[in-house]
This record gives sequence, C-alpha cells and structure tokens, in this order.
Amino acid sequence: MILRDYAESDWAGIWPFLARILGDGETYCMPMDTTEDRARAWWTGKPGGRVFVAEENGQILGTGELHPNQAGGGSHVANAGFMVAPEASGRGVGRAIATRVIQAATDDGYRAMQFNAVVETNVGAVHLWESLGFRTLTTVPGAFRHPTRGDVGLNVMFRELA
Amino acid sequence: MILRDYAESDWAGIWPFLARILGDGETYCMPMDTTEDRARAWWTGKPGGRVFVAEENGQILGTGELHPNQAGGGSHVANAGFMVAPEASGRGVGRAIATRVIQAATDDGYRAMQFNAVVETNVGAVHLWESLGFRTLTTVPGAFRHPTRGDVGLNVMFRELA
Repeated sequence: MILRDYAESDWAGIWPFLARILGDGETYCMPMDTTEDRARAWWTGKPGGRVFVAEENGQILGTGELHPNQAGGGSHVANAGFMVAPEASGRGVGRAIATRVIQAATDDGYRAMQFNAVVETNVGAVHLWESLGFRTLTTVPGAFRHPTRGDVGLNVMFRELA
Repeated sequence: MILRDYAESDWAGIWPFLARILGDGETYCMPMDTTEDRARAWWTGKPGGRVFVAEENGQILGTGELHPNQAGGGSHVANAGFMVAPEASGRGVGRAIATRVIQAATDDGYRAMQFNAVVETNVGAVHLWESLGFRTLTTVPGAFRHPTRGDVGLNVMFRELA
C-alpha cells in the first residue's frame, strides 16, 4: 500500500465506496442520495483543500482530505476526513491515511486540527482519532439523525499540532 | 423598526456595514478582505438558507441569516448569524433579529440551533445568545486569530428549539 496525493484520475476508484458510505448515512453529514458531482466537489473541491489516496496495485483502498476548518481568523486550524473502502477494512488503511493527513497538516503550518461532527456511534473513527492524540471537547446532543439509531450526538474533536 | 425577509434590493444597504464588520476581523471567520461577491454569496446564498433584515425608514439597521448547520443527518439543527450596523448599535437591533431568527427556525421545524464559532471575545454576541437560552458547550482553544488580542477561543453554543 502506498499513500500519495490524489490525482483526478483517482476519482473513479473512490466514488464506488464513497457512494456506499454516504448512502449508509451513518457517518457523514451529507445526504444519502448525494449526486456524484456534488460528492466530488465536496470531497475534492474544498477551498484550500488537499486530498490523499491509499493505493495498492492500482486499486484505491481509501482516501483522506485536509482543509481549513474555518476561513479568515480560523484558517490556522485544519479539518480533515477519511474513508476506507469496506473491502479494505481491518488492514490499517484508515490509520495510515489519518497519520498522513496529520503530518501534512503539520507540514502545511496548521496549528491544530478540529472535527466538528464525528458521529458518536462511529466508534471506529472516534477511537482512531483518540489514539492519534485527539480529545472530544464536547458532544452536541442529538445533532445527528442516524438512520437506525435515532438522534445521536456529534463529537467536536481537537488536537494541537506541533 | 420592522423585521422582514430579505429582498435582493436590500444588499446595497447591508454591504457597507457587513464590509466594515468583516474588515475588522474580530467576529467572523471570514477574510478581512472578502470581496463583495464572495460576501454576498456567503451571507445570502447558503443552501437552504433564509435572510432577514431590520429596517427603519428605508435604512437597513441589521441583518440575520438562518441555515442548516450540517447537511444530511445534521440538517435538523440550524445555524444562524446576525450583524448590526455600527451606527444602530445599542438599540436592541441584534436582540430583535436574533429573536426573529430563533422563531423562524422553530417555525421551519428545526429541533435545535448551534453556533460553531462564536469568538469568545465577542462578549456582546455571547451574552445575547446566552440570554436567549444558549449554552456554551465548549470553547475550542486558540481557534481564532484575533487581529489585536492574539489567539482566542471559539465557542460552540447550542440550544434546543421547542
């Protein structure tokens, strides 16, 4: 598995699993029926954003993205996300991408990283970020309408970057 | 003073004070040199957004906006903002707009309202929202680069809507 910057030609390898993940509606605040154009703009087109992929033998196993959490006076704090193809789960792809994203944010001069909306029932992501130094500052009560678990909380997670 | 929905023709009365407020760089996570087109899209063009104005004798005294804080599973939580023309400060314009925005969010079926980034040194806004039932869930440390006070915190504020 190699980690590298995203190229436009990677999208075709990302969309199948990104569509499944959004379609499940359990982890990201995006409509379950998000169109491909909208999804691509959201994942790869954020202002000041960078995108990464994990690839093995020409197959995209996962992707990460990094962007300023806020504009203007908030732009020294990064935000990020990652997605792993379900068929590649359990192999450390998410951890590898998350580690790369944190390194890239540090290299780019961000002073901290913040997530505004980690679904609290997405325990895999919560634990992964915690293991990488993030703490949950608060859980916004009932802020996410989970398709099977009802209204659950959204974690605001944060860590400084050195 | 009347409170009413925004019309496109109101923009010319909003931009002078909105530009000053963004130019101060003390309260909103937007670049101090935000262009008029960008500012207009940001304030009046958010997906699912509504905009209000406070008007007196044809003069726009202030404006508020309301939009979903997140898409998809987070769209039942509103976000909002308001700005008051400096020459109209101290007259309750902000409180009137904020009250209207909360009522509109309730009428529109939102279940809660959340702010992601209230600058902690913007005590007027913090106290106004607290007086209207909001609580600060957390303050993200150093997440806002204030032009004169250095890095200050951003409050995540929240209230349920009935």
